Amino acid sequence: MSKQSAQLDVITTVGGGCCAPLITAPLAPDDAIDLAKAFKALGDPVRLRLLSLITSAGGESCVCDLTEAFDLTGPTISHHLKVLREAGLVDCQRRGTWVYYWPIQEKLAQLSGLIATPGLK
Amino acid sequence: MSKQSAQLDVITTVGGGCCAPLITAPLAPDDAIDLAKAFKALGDPVRLRLLSLITSAGGESCVCDLTEAFDLTGPTISHHLKVLREAGLVDCQRRGTWVYYWPIQEKLAQLSGLIATPGLK
Repeated sequence: MSKQSAQLDVITTVGGGCCAPLITAPLAPDDAIDLAKAFKALGDPVRLRLLSLITSAGGESCVCDLTEAFDLTGPTISHHLKVLREAGLVDCQRRGTWVYYWPIQEKLAQLSGLIATPGLK
Repeated sequence: MSKQSAQLDVITTVGGGCCAPLITAPLAPDDAIDLAKAFKALGDPVRLRLLSLITSAGGESCVCDLTEAFDLTGPTISHHLKVLREAGLVDCQRRGTWVYYWPIQEKLAQLSGLIATPGLK
């Protein structure tokens, strides 16, 4: 196995998803529909920052802390969090007054592996 | 340096971009605007398939071959290719009758590194 093949194999395994990296094979139309939904969810600055806050927290993030980081209303933040959740990028649980969010690392790994260019040094 | 720190360092270096992986630090608002534009370009099934065709070709792709893979008009394909180009994901050159496209691997590596979860096994 070549070095590049070995790297691609690692990425595919880590991703755990449906698809080989784009660099190795064209994407099937049905797979493209699901994956595009996830990338579309990332295609907004507020959602990308929300995901970065949730992911970099290293555990869970309270929606109360997430809302404080933006000059936006609670309902707007809730809408963006719903889009991230429906795209499979985060999940959440209500506990008492607040909702807590955490990243779905398998989904992030799948998307990262899909567009990875392991030959690039 | 821990194993995870070393992995993150590699990803940041390979990405060659503006930003540390989301898993390490929250994203700055200005960086989020640029990056969201690129993810938004990926957030469409046709564009994702176009990018996969261009990237998996291993060199250049003629727009004539790309158009043949879809049941869409030439102008529609050209529009999607323009969005990918304006997002910095591909570049192109006209030679004679046809335009040829290739991926910007540094940009793909930047986006991949941003959402990578190197701790995931």
